[in-house]
Amino acid sequence: MEETFVPFRGIINDLRGRLNCYKEDWVGGFTSGYRIFAPTTYIFFASAIPVISFGEQLERATNGVLTAVQTLASTSLCGIAHSILGGQPLLVLGVAEPTVIMYTFMYDFVKDKSEVGPQLFLAWAGWVCIWTSFLLLLMSIFGACSLINRFTRVAGELFGLLIAMLFMQQAIKGLVEEFRIPEQDDSNLPQFQPSWLFGNGMFALVLSFGLLLTGLRSRKARSWRFGSGWLRSLIADYGVPILVLIWTAVSYAPTGHVPGGIPRRLFSPNPWSPGATKNWTVITELLEVPVVFIFVAFIPATMIAVLYYFDHSVASQLAQQKEFNLRKPASFHYDLLLLAGLVIVCGLLGIPPSNGVIPQSPMHTKSLATLKNEMVRKKLVQTARKSIQNNSSLGQLYGDMQEAFQQMQTPLVHQPTSSLALKELKRSTMQLAAESGSIAGPIDETVFDPEKDVDDLLPMEVKEQRLSNLLQSLMVGACLGAMPILKKIPSSVLWGYFAFMAIESLPGNQFWERLLLLFTAPSRRYKVLEHAHASFVETVPFKMIAIFTIFQLLYLLSCFGITWIPVAGVLFPLLIMLLVPIRQYILPKFFKGPHLQELDAAEYEEAPALTYNMAMREADLQGMGKAPEQEDDEEVLSERFTPSRGEIKRRRSPLKLSSSSPQMP
Amino acid sequence: MEETFVPFRGIINDLRGRLNCYKEDWVGGFTSGYRIFAPTTYIFFASAIPVISFGEQLERATNGVLTAVQTLASTSLCGIAHSILGGQPLLVLGVAEPTVIMYTFMYDFVKDKSEVGPQLFLAWAGWVCIWTSFLLLLMSIFGACSLINRFTRVAGELFGLLIAMLFMQQAIKGLVEEFRIPEQDDSNLPQFQPSWLFGNGMFALVLSFGLLLTGLRSRKARSWRFGSGWLRSLIADYGVPILVLIWTAVSYAPTGHVPGGIPRRLFSPNPWSPGATKNWTVITELLEVPVVFIFVAFIPATMIAVLYYFDHSVASQLAQQKEFNLRKPASFHYDLLLLAGLVIVCGLLGIPPSNGVIPQSPMHTKSLATLKNEMVRKKLVQTARKSIQNNSSLGQLYGDMQEAFQQMQTPLVHQPTSSLALKELKRSTMQLAAESGSIAGPIDETVFDPEKDVDDLLPMEVKEQRLSNLLQSLMVGACLGAMPILKKIPSSVLWGYFAFMAIESLPGNQFWERLLLLFTAPSRRYKVLEHAHASFVETVPFKMIAIFTIFQLLYLLSCFGITWIPVAGVLFPLLIMLLVPIRQYILPKFFKGPHLQELDAAEYEEAPALTYNMAMREADLQGMGKAPEQEDDEEVLSERFTPSRGEIKRRRSPLKLSSSSPQMP
Repeated sequence: MEETFVPFRGIINDLRGRLNCYKEDWVGGFTSGYRIFAPTTYIFFASAIPVISFGEQLERATNGVLTAVQTLASTSLCGIAHSILGGQPLLVLGVAEPTVIMYTFMYDFVKDKSEVGPQLFLAWAGWVCIWTSFLLLLMSIFGACSLINRFTRVAGELFGLLIAMLFMQQAIKGLVEEFRIPEQDDSNLPQFQPSWLFGNGMFALVLSFGLLLTGLRSRKARSWRFGSGWLRSLIADYGVPILVLIWTAVSYAPTGHVPGGIPRRLFSPNPWSPGATKNWTVITELLEVPVVFIFVAFIPATMIAVLYYFDHSVASQLAQQKEFNLRKPASFHYDLLLLAGLVIVCGLLGIPPSNGVIPQSPMHTKSLATLKNEMVRKKLVQTARKSIQNNSSLGQLYGDMQEAFQQMQTPLVHQPTSSLALKELKRSTMQLAAESGSIAGPIDETVFDPEKDVDDLLPMEVKEQRLSNLLQSLMVGACLGAMPILKKIPSSVLWGYFAFMAIESLPGNQFWERLLLLFTAPSRRYKVLEHAHASFVETVPFKMIAIFTIFQLLYLLSCFGITWIPVAGVLFPLLIMLLVPIRQYILPKFFKGPHLQELDAAEYEEAPALTYNMAMREADLQGMGKAPEQEDDEEVLSERFTPSRGEIKRRRSPLKLSSSSPQMP
Repeated sequence: MEETFVPFRGIINDLRGRLNCYKEDWVGGFTSGYRIFAPTTYIFFASAIPVISFGEQLERATNGVLTAVQTLASTSLCGIAHSILGGQPLLVLGVAEPTVIMYTFMYDFVKDKSEVGPQLFLAWAGWVCIWTSFLLLLMSIFGACSLINRFTRVAGELFGLLIAMLFMQQAIKGLVEEFRIPEQDDSNLPQFQPSWLFGNGMFALVLSFGLLLTGLRSRKARSWRFGSGWLRSLIADYGVPILVLIWTAVSYAPTGHVPGGIPRRLFSPNPWSPGATKNWTVITELLEVPVVFIFVAFIPATMIAVLYYFDHSVASQLAQQKEFNLRKPASFHYDLLLLAGLVIVCGLLGIPPSNGVIPQSPMHTKSLATLKNEMVRKKLVQTARKSIQNNSSLGQLYGDMQEAFQQMQTPLVHQPTSSLALKELKRSTMQLAAESGSIAGPIDETVFDPEKDVDDLLPMEVKEQRLSNLLQSLMVGACLGAMPILKKIPSSVLWGYFAFMAIESLPGNQFWERLLLLFTAPSRRYKVLEHAHASFVETVPFKMIAIFTIFQLLYLLSCFGITWIPVAGVLFPLLIMLLVPIRQYILPKFFKGPHLQELDAAEYEEAPALTYNMAMREADLQGMGKAPEQEDDEEVLSERFTPSRGEIKRRRSPLKLSSSSPQMP
């Protein structure tokens, strides 16, 4: 991305790039068929459940002025708008925790001021949104997002891990609360006797760990030995929603003497309850806010603007990491402009605004990678089967598969089509055939078993489209109508889900992998190479990796500490932004250039990051020269591996491929 | 084993065989050093915890006449005697569930008879033991154990799975009971209010699942990436005892309003409590039992004798399965004779007798296999390191390692020393060297990394000695003194431990593997080959495997059903014994000979089971002929694999070995 601060240039570039693929964004979504529901449902749950929980939090903090009805409405509305009008459709919008904290602070500020008070709070918040929107507008016009360019892996991953920590903190807090009497509730109720409190807490532990452990297991269903293929796919795709259902059913198992309030369940008014929707008319009250408060509103607005600028752009960036191998262009400037519009709309409707969220946005991309992977896989297996039936030779098989693979490619690409994977297939199958002496003759499934071997050849690809985002936003909206059903979910299941989200966001985070590496026995460090983007293990001395990681860890802990400071704590992203100059000017004094480049590639540094050029890669492979090209080669290869998540398989090396054939002794 | 019914011949043969290795049994134990404590502690827990729980059961059933004090005393006493005087020191003795059921029945029978009543119950039970002992004596003299020969894998594994089911049943029953008021307790106690009962049950779920899940994980610690080697070994060896401590500590976490009785803990009198030891003088009351009751005692005695004959021999056989590759001879006849002696001693001391137990006996052998494996591994890694430092060539490295390996072998073997594993090492390293062009020159760790590659070459071997059995029996005895500490363990941790034992006994059970295979997707059946003795997957049609397995499953369920019948249920082993004629005369009518031989090799059948002849194997390997020798070859190879348990690694195939080297692209 070009660093440009010329007014409107960024927005125009973004629009030009995205308009080119706008039609394909929809066509591609619809041609995926029913399979699109897998990532949709997955991301819908990841989006809706925290939003409901934040709504509950907001309800307690604002004495019921804002509830889960408003947070769901905002998430749905902004999501629908972004999926249709937004630049990068992989970005998921939602009401996030910092927004809740800011709104809580704003409510506390005005509730005792007689000129505003609770009754004019939403109108005042509307003014905050107006100012915020204005600031965001300026930032997008003057290309502030160009700075995101300088935001490297070290900062992005630190931010990702911090969000995971905050989610985990929420899960733990929530579980501890299950052993206590909720603040505003009547402590004389039977379920708040010490004995029932104890039982409620223990039951909450069972339900939350139940959901967490089974949820983590279900995500790996694709690699299970058991069950037919469709069942495994079903569990991997829809396991978590199904498990929420199952554990909710379990929560109804205790009957008899157990009082109705155990276990505790989600709490929210229905949208049709009286007073639940008085926010919609807030626009009529805007001018009732005293002028001085209209200007005071600028102060929280600056904080929210900085926060949104940062969160929105980083969420977008994390959803578009290099590893995902995206083919459609980014759209930071234009998306910030759209956000400015959404913020003002939300403000005038009296609902808290949404912005791009982590970890849901990268989770969205990952789930779409799985989808694409499954689709390509199915096609290639079919092709290979047909070739084998026709008694093709290996050469023909390779040709057929390459043709099928090309057909599956998105026609609108700004990068040459990947054919590396199939080159590798050719090489490894040829080698195998040479060994078994059947290079020209027909092949059978012992030489090349489509079901097994195709998995190893698939490159990382993402199904980039708008449909999944639109559908999940619509489903979030539908939650409003389904409130009576949602309220049956125990809150402990929700805490388990928070922990699940935190853990799900870890794999593929190189910072996390390096943290684990610190605790890995030296003799087993090579194992890290087996399932992660980790070429640095071989190229950077362990001591350097350790120092770099410990620095990052201390920085992470500082950021985490900051979040505990009331109000100002929401500006923790500023501390992360500070990493940009630190990375650019201070770190190079302590680490050697190549090491730093290996641990945290920055585009502005001397060595141009390896561009995504397939032709170069193939040359590398064909040359097969050892060091020094060796390292680059491995870097390139490992870059293409997916973040290690159960459902996306890494390609095995050719030698391993051949040893998996039962014919070889 | 020869089938002989000539009086005393079996006993004399056994004695002759075992006396030869008696000295080595002790020397070998002591030379293992402190490492012997790992299997000792492991088996001590597996032995003591169920015995305490059975003691509790007995206490409730006999109104306190017999308690955990007596069951522990019997287990310790018989264990010490067997470890010193017994034939097969791998066999673990203990008071088992069937004994408890028989004693319960016997108590119910006499408690209302005025001539005997509770006060003479132990004396009458003494007479039952005398008759039992007499019957066992006859059986051992006349070679009844020769029939064990005909007891094939199908029956042994079915029995093993049945025991696992019974343990799991006990775990589930125990957990359900945690939600209920114990029978003899005062239901007015605060901890039996519905609210606290609910809390107690939920807490029990947390504690038992906590122990179960962490316990299962700890057993795999050796293959963890994290922590230094010694820490991983420590966790794998002592993880379960440590976890029992940890979860017991957790059980003390809730304080405040929680009543003292929550969670429930083990219950047993201290051995020094008044009346707890009145059983020791039972010998003086023997003649007070009316004569008619002395003769009536013969009836339960026949049942117990059949039960013990069967249990003892099968436990011994399962501890000596072919896969374990034992080098010292079996001792069925003599061990039954010794059991006869132990039963009479227990009867006269007024304690319930012990017999060979499942799953503890095979668990004992498995844990000793791990020990031996660790010892050989350490030595070989040292040797390889030294060779590499001396710039040896691969040929020299191989020579050094072979020499070290030979030194580690038990001198007293009745089979030629295994050198197959090292032959394979030679072959695979040579192949690797040829490829990398360094066959004659010095090697480095990229070609052969001792830490990584030695693991793949180790054959299955068991440290056969008497020390671990003696020590664990002494520790069981020490439990009597430690009763006040043991009583701090929550009963729910115990249920978790029961479930842990049930699950730990499954891997390596081919019947279990076949059951899993039924639920495995056809395309993934090959995965079974990756970690089990499973050559049958390739040689027997799946339909045949399925029919055989379903037959076995139905039979298992029948046996399980039988155990629910009061009293007569303890004779479920007879139903398993019935499998011997079924296997010999009926199954061959439904299955082809080679298939049956593959699924359930019987020594008496036409094809002589592959004898354990190393020379033949090597010839096979060098010939490398494909089918039909291919199958035998694979059978032989896979026979040597350990039952797949996390801590014992299977050798990888040579090709896989080479691909693990980072130098190979």
